[in-house]
Amino acid sequence: MVNSSSHPCIKDGWFREISDKSFPGQAFTLAVDSILYQAQSEFQDILIFSNKVYGTVLVLDGIIQCTEFDEFAYQEMITHVAMFAHSNPKRVLIIGGGDGGVLREVAKHKGVEEITMVEIDSSVIELSRKFLPTLSNGAFDDERLDLKLCDGFKFLEDIGEAGAQKKFDVIITDSSDPDGPAEAFFQERYFQLLHNALNPDGIVIMQSSENIWLNLNYLCDLKNTAKRVFPNTEYCYTMVPTYTSGQLGLIVCSNNDSIPLIAPQRSLSGREQEQLKYYNPQIHSSSFVLPTWADKVINK
Amino acid sequence: MVNSSSHPCIKDGWFREISDKSFPGQAFTLAVDSILYQAQSEFQDILIFSNKVYGTVLVLDGIIQCTEFDEFAYQEMITHVAMFAHSNPKRVLIIGGGDGGVLREVAKHKGVEEITMVEIDSSVIELSRKFLPTLSNGAFDDERLDLKLCDGFKFLEDIGEAGAQKKFDVIITDSSDPDGPAEAFFQERYFQLLHNALNPDGIVIMQSSENIWLNLNYLCDLKNTAKRVFPNTEYCYTMVPTYTSGQLGLIVCSNNDSIPLIAPQRSLSGREQEQLKYYNPQIHSSSFVLPTWADKVINK
Repeated sequence: MVNSSSHPCIKDGWFREISDKSFPGQAFTLAVDSILYQAQSEFQDILIFSNKVYGTVLVLDGIIQCTEFDEFAYQEMITHVAMFAHSNPKRVLIIGGGDGGVLREVAKHKGVEEITMVEIDSSVIELSRKFLPTLSNGAFDDERLDLKLCDGFKFLEDIGEAGAQKKFDVIITDSSDPDGPAEAFFQERYFQLLHNALNPDGIVIMQSSENIWLNLNYLCDLKNTAKRVFPNTEYCYTMVPTYTSGQLGLIVCSNNDSIPLIAPQRSLSGREQEQLKYYNPQIHSSSFVLPTWADKVINK
Repeated sequence: MVNSSSHPCIKDGWFREISDKSFPGQAFTLAVDSILYQAQSEFQDILIFSNKVYGTVLVLDGIIQCTEFDEFAYQEMITHVAMFAHSNPKRVLIIGGGDGGVLREVAKHKGVEEITMVEIDSSVIELSRKFLPTLSNGAFDDERLDLKLCDGFKFLEDIGEAGAQKKFDVIITDSSDPDGPAEAFFQERYFQLLHNALNPDGIVIMQSSENIWLNLNYLCDLKNTAKRVFPNTEYCYTMVPTYTSGQLGLIVCSNNDSIPLIAPQRSLSGREQEQLKYYNPQIHSSSFVLPTWADKVINK
């Protein structure tokens, strides 16, 4: 076990998540039962520890990415809101998502024929498979997977320049927050690249990195940035107790104006619903319903 | 300013909310800009401090009760889900709610003729009026208010024994958590007293003190306890970033089986909607929609 005093976010046996930029004056803290791994990869600081309630916790650059206990709330919502808003997704692109959770959820859709996953940091994949095996749950061995270890932004630029014939039905951006290597994923040029890589009825979903409580104006700006490229853009959210304020916003877009993103476009089979712990058609729709003060800003 | 080291929950300028029983292994922390008040009342430990984002924070027995910044999410939902689930509430009883927030929200309903509020700890009222004046926002001066400084449980027993002729249309239990003086508010006898004090179409709502992430079985038990008295009982929740896991469950009951609690029973006027920051008819309904795993336990 690594000495707990060697990570700047751990003191007296507690991990402390602090960001003076995103959430000044507050900090969520978790007791550290044991540190499982810590190192600086080529791209970011990686910390993995265990907590008696939340299980194994993955932290990148000091920010909690997922815990074993509540990860399904994020993985299922970012995946299935997009996947069920599409009538028949066959080709899916995951940008980021190195922990394998989104891949696991996409792989549950039997109609999907090809899954392309683009992750910049191979160490996140390796460490997640080792320390958080339930995240991917074997999905890295799925025969439909084409895993590319490169920058997602550059991947989209390259396929755009190559005039790719085969585009995607659903693109899921499961990046880290914009302060680190994922900064470019929150800018208009990125939405343009997504648009170019998408089939006509395609759906894009991305984590917004923020929530309505602390960064409402940022979310409004991000949604407006997306709307300049995708007129059909909506905001929804998922509830995750280890994320700041207990919720995280998602931006959902389609280049087809007639697709109502706020409801699933197809019924879930009994088998599909059985495989899901969080998502259901009712929570799909209710995740788009906002408290009045936030609705007035985001959906004005 | 009181010396920060004199309160057991404050260290190095940070307030730390810990409960090994309700949320072991985790703690939400807030930077303390200044301590405004701290003392032991006849009933509980009271701490009031300010934080640069959340404003003034009220803490009872070490647990955050409300902050200026996000209090409306709790006050509006516990009030208006019940008030709009009733077609025409005229007599309203608030048990607890000493900070005045629920009273403020009830008072917005012009059709209400009488508001009875029963708070055991007068110091919570006095201190909230002084340090958190926007909570009650003048509602303690409302002519419809009959304020009683006594134990809510005993109040209900007494009016039951007296064979009260005038019963209530809506009863809101805005208590602290069951570990302290509010313990009796979470037991079957209390629901029976509520039932006895309620008009035939009456609605009861109470804060559950827990959320689906950490105490799902407790919530299930509490709902079942309520159901033994009120066959028409539902669970909903509100999202509050300074409450554990960012959400808090509410138990809603009616002794009339035909009232669908999950939707407002009357339209909001434009003026009513203008006065509300959080509640709207859509969020009323969506607050009853649960993630699948929780739905299976609570609504089985």
